Amino acid sequence: MSSSFIDLSSDAVTKPTVEMRQAMLDAEVGDDVYGDDLTVLKLQEMTAKLLGKEAALFVPSGTMGNLICALNHCSQFGSEMILGDECYMHIYQQGGCATLARIHSQTVPTQPDGTLLLHDIEQRIRIVKDDDHFTCTKLVCLENTHNRMGGKVLTVEYIQSVGKLCQQYGLKLHMDGSRLMNAVVKLGVSPAELVESYDSVLFCLSKGLVAPVGSLIVGTHEFIVQAKRLRKVLGGGMRQAGVLAAAGIISLAQMPKLLNLDHENAKLLAEGLSKINGCEIDPKNDVQTNMVFFSIKFQ
Amino acid sequence: MSSSFIDLSSDAVTKPTVEMRQAMLDAEVGDDVYGDDLTVLKLQEMTAKLLGKEAALFVPSGTMGNLICALNHCSQFGSEMILGDECYMHIYQQGGCATLARIHSQTVPTQPDGTLLLHDIEQRIRIVKDDDHFTCTKLVCLENTHNRMGGKVLTVEYIQSVGKLCQQYGLKLHMDGSRLMNAVVKLGVSPAELVESYDSVLFCLSKGLVAPVGSLIVGTHEFIVQAKRLRKVLGGGMRQAGVLAAAGIISLAQMPKLLNLDHENAKLLAEGLSKINGCEIDPKNDVQTNMVFFSIKFQ
Amino acid sequence: MSSSFIDLSSDAVTKPTVEMRQAMLDAEVGDDVYGDDLTVLKLQEMTAKLLGKEAALFVPSGTMGNLICALNHCSQFGSEMILGDECYMHIYQQGGCATLARIHSQTVPTQPDGTLLLHDIEQRIRIVKDDDHFTCTKLVCLENTHNRMGGKVLTVEYIQSVGKLCQQYGLKLHMDGSRLMNAVVKLGVSPAELVESYDSVLFCLSKGLVAPVGSLIVGTHEFIVQAKRLRKVLGGGMRQAGVLAAAGIISLAQMPKLLNLDHENAKLLAEGLSKINGCEIDPKNDVQTNMVFFSIKFQ
Amino acid sequence: MSSSFIDLSSDAVTKPTVEMRQAMLDAEVGDDVYGDDLTVLKLQEMTAKLLGKEAALFVPSGTMGNLICALNHCSQFGSEMILGDECYMHIYQQGGCATLARIHSQTVPTQPDGTLLLHDIEQRIRIVKDDDHFTCTKLVCLENTHNRMGGKVLTVEYIQSVGKLCQQYGLKLHMDGSRLMNAVVKLGVSPAELVESYDSVLFCLSKGLVAPVGSLIVGTHEFIVQAKRLRKVLGGGMRQAGVLAAAGIISLAQMPKLLNLDHENAKLLAEGLSKINGCEIDPKNDVQTNMVFFSIKFQ
Repeated sequence: MSSSFIDLSSDAVTKPTVEMRQAMLDAEVGDDVYGDDLTVLKLQEMTAKLLGKEAALFVPSGTMGNLICALNHCSQFGSEMILGDECYMHIYQQGGCATLARIHSQTVPTQPDGTLLLHDIEQRIRIVKDDDHFTCTKLVCLENTHNRMGGKVLTVEYIQSVGKLCQQYGLKLHMDGSRLMNAVVKLGVSPAELVESYDSVLFCLSKGLVAPVGSLIVGTHEFIVQAKRLRKVLGGGMRQAGVLAAAGIISLAQMPKLLNLDHENAKLLAEGLSKINGCEIDPKNDVQTNMVFFSIKFQ
Repeated sequence: MSSSFIDLSSDAVTKPTVEMRQAMLDAEVGDDVYGDDLTVLKLQEMTAKLLGKEAALFVPSGTMGNLICALNHCSQFGSEMILGDECYMHIYQQGGCATLARIHSQTVPTQPDGTLLLHDIEQRIRIVKDDDHFTCTKLVCLENTHNRMGGKVLTVEYIQSVGKLCQQYGLKLHMDGSRLMNAVVKLGVSPAELVESYDSVLFCLSKGLVAPVGSLIVGTHEFIVQAKRLRKVLGGGMRQAGVLAAAGIISLAQMPKLLNLDHENAKLLAEGLSKINGCEIDPKNDVQTNMVFFSIKFQ
Repeated sequence: MSSSFIDLSSDAVTKPTVEMRQAMLDAEVGDDVYGDDLTVLKLQEMTAKLLGKEAALFVPSGTMGNLICALNHCSQFGSEMILGDECYMHIYQQGGCATLARIHSQTVPTQPDGTLLLHDIEQRIRIVKDDDHFTCTKLVCLENTHNRMGGKVLTVEYIQSVGKLCQQYGLKLHMDGSRLMNAVVKLGVSPAELVESYDSVLFCLSKGLVAPVGSLIVGTHEFIVQAKRLRKVLGGGMRQAGVLAAAGIISLAQMPKLLNLDHENAKLLAEGLSKINGCEIDPKNDVQTNMVFFSIKFQ
Repeated sequence: MSSSFIDLSSDAVTKPTVEMRQAMLDAEVGDDVYGDDLTVLKLQEMTAKLLGKEAALFVPSGTMGNLICALNHCSQFGSEMILGDECYMHIYQQGGCATLARIHSQTVPTQPDGTLLLHDIEQRIRIVKDDDHFTCTKLVCLENTHNRMGGKVLTVEYIQSVGKLCQQYGLKLHMDGSRLMNAVVKLGVSPAELVESYDSVLFCLSKGLVAPVGSLIVGTHEFIVQAKRLRKVLGGGMRQAGVLAAAGIISLAQMPKLLNLDHENAKLLAEGLSKINGCEIDPKNDVQTNMVFFSIKFQ
């Protein structure tokens, strides 16, 4: 009889595969602070190409990646960003966008499907520089898949509509895509197609992609040059980071195709749970990717 | 026939009375940075007594007063405050609470009567220091009368209920009472009664009280000692500020009793407007104090 | 026998003249937050003209004026400024350039005559954007007359040499000229001549010019438009500020010509002190303007 | 004939040993954000014990470790620290202490032996809370071994004298000990003895200890609990960080005893260089640990 324990608390607790471990052992490394780590460079090139952007940067965590992107877009004193009131960047990053990056946040209600209404976003935009009462909006942030909404997926069409709004007002658009590949797999589009409207994207090699440590951000060459500076001041410049990037290369190459399995298992679990008396969950509508949130009703 | 022009755009455009001017001419002054301006000291004592708090501080503007209070309550790195999504501090202070005071803001929906629902506030409170994902809530802010809600008044009972919630969670409660005296007059309570539940209060001598420049903040002795330091670093320490305080003393002594007249005139104006075809306003419910907001429907 | 008391502790304790008081009484005022106060506008125009710059802004204090100028030049995240280790901005402004404006400061030794050595400044300049270890220098600050060096005056030639160095490296040059007019009078040059090399200048209407409250900053039109925004977020936007500006107009028109008298009195005092046994001061070299610093040697 | 290339540019370019690689392959890992990574916990315990402090925290870089310690000691708004004008934290961390942690820095001249004069430190301390012109000094930082002074070592006696000064004024003392073990080996004392006077210490597993990535900070339990929060907000919380910690455990156990060899090689190199015409270096006084800085005089 098998006695193995499966921790379903979060996909953040996933552990590296044997192949990743071996890659870490074999990795060619250099000093990445000076851009001399070939393994990191390789991972960054793979990522930029995969997401159809000019350049990519390896960072120690999703939190740092989002923080760098926000600060980079809002590096001018007095900048403001618009984001969902239930998004990860606003709720779970310990307020770093205000406390470290000094960005003013305007939140709009997060819809149950993870979207923000275009009307809500537009209403909060402040571009009138003539009125000294207002900050100046620079950035809109979306989250895909959406964590607190249970792994909901934003569609390409929706993202394009937000992208157009941003262009109209001269705003940048950032994606907290910590679970980007889950959205890609669910929608059956290419990563590049999914992120085309964004000026910057963060995604994690850990979580469903099971690498031990590391995330990547992408954008223009100029954006990434500045991002590298911000990574250094935040303390995210790591010397021989190739040991981590080596695992990441495996993640990126091999793991996305397995995410469908996660999604199927999540659906299966949800269906089972829905049959338990007092357990509240709608498998069809609530479970789109790898997250299963349910309530238990005590009687 | 009289040809005088009355500017109804805002009570911020009110001008000082002849008596205020004369008081400015006669004022005894000293160096207020060193606490040696007797006229400023007198105004601060009057104010502390009137509002039933230990101490008061004269500041150049309502914006600075609110900023000092928020920063004072949230001076520890990583602090968060909860406030209404339509409040002045969030919308009209150019984001200073984030950009200068590095406070993370959680907003909750502002109700049409200017209140925030207790349930909404409670849901946003983060006191669990064990979870490194969260900031630590330190402060709740209310606004009375509420500017964007058309001068609506918060009742003593409502304020007490928020005060109790704050006490329960160890939070401070601040009042943006830029038009405090309008609320006092409308409710028919004493200023001290109205602000009893607050740890700090800002109110303005300009606006309906018609002094040319200046606001006051109140709180404990210790709070005001720190507030004086914050006023200095922000550049709000003014040398012979007694010339302004002299006008403020007149404001405080003579103007509140005239506010009823403003409220009556506002109601009268609203009633007149409501009779104009295409002009949308409900004089009874929309106009509680000195503000008259209406829409014009074009056909 | 006369019993009047003269407070020689600081020129910050000077009090307004009767004529200034009368001007405050008579001043035409408006809402200066919206640029509608004609008296403030007049003072700003006078100042810009007098200093040969495009525009000027009235601010409540020298501390705020310096802070606004520094933040304005260094509004991009990751900026650095170079200033003297004994200058007012570094020592007496409660660290606001770091704590509020989050500018990194590189200090260089202040020479006994108030200057900074060109070599010292140049050695601290960081313009190499390629090295992520460094911040980016944006600003150099000088102080004239120099407070902690006893009111020493920087000459036009010296200022020009720093100006050239700044141009060479693309840096801005700011002057903390809290006692600008004392330097002007001492050097016998025009204010415009003295500040020609600077991108921004702060000077105070209080101190030797004896207005009760207020300072001015000057720069290009664009600089002042941004400065006005920064004044608002710091809480320095004052409604009917014309009452203060009216006194400032008198200051500017009448007081500079009297500063020579202050300088003569200071010299006289120093000479008297130098004759007292145990009192250490060199009237010729130590006292250039209105400051008299001396040591007492106990035996 | 051997053709191997040795990069002497910096000890930051050292690469992990085979044994470290193997340890990374074998490491037991968990989610370190929740304190569930046993390998990280083991490394932290080893470190705390070795340095004689209550607790330790693993961080991605020395820059982050120093930033966390400074921010932790100066988390109250308006704090100031005193440090050497040539120290790494002031020169090479991109100004993060001001731009992110908004700490005001007072620098004092760094002596050629890496020390700061007690008199210079004392002269910059501001504890007078009564004067609103001043920030409040909270922290003094030393660097050992001192990078820009060529790897100079601070002695236990000197450190104790600074420690006493700090205690006298109620200040905290932090050590940037990025190359702590080089100082330990050079002085022939225990790590705990060397750091006894410090409230916090940062040291790196990379550099001479050749681990690929990672540094540690130590302090009291309470300090480290807060430091862990700051690590999270900066984006330094890494999920399965055990893969890195595993290499660090080898570093800590095996590398310090090899540092003597580095120091001997450095001395040997310096002696050889000193015999080259035009090459300026004093092997005896300039080379104390593993750094060799020399000038070339062109004729």
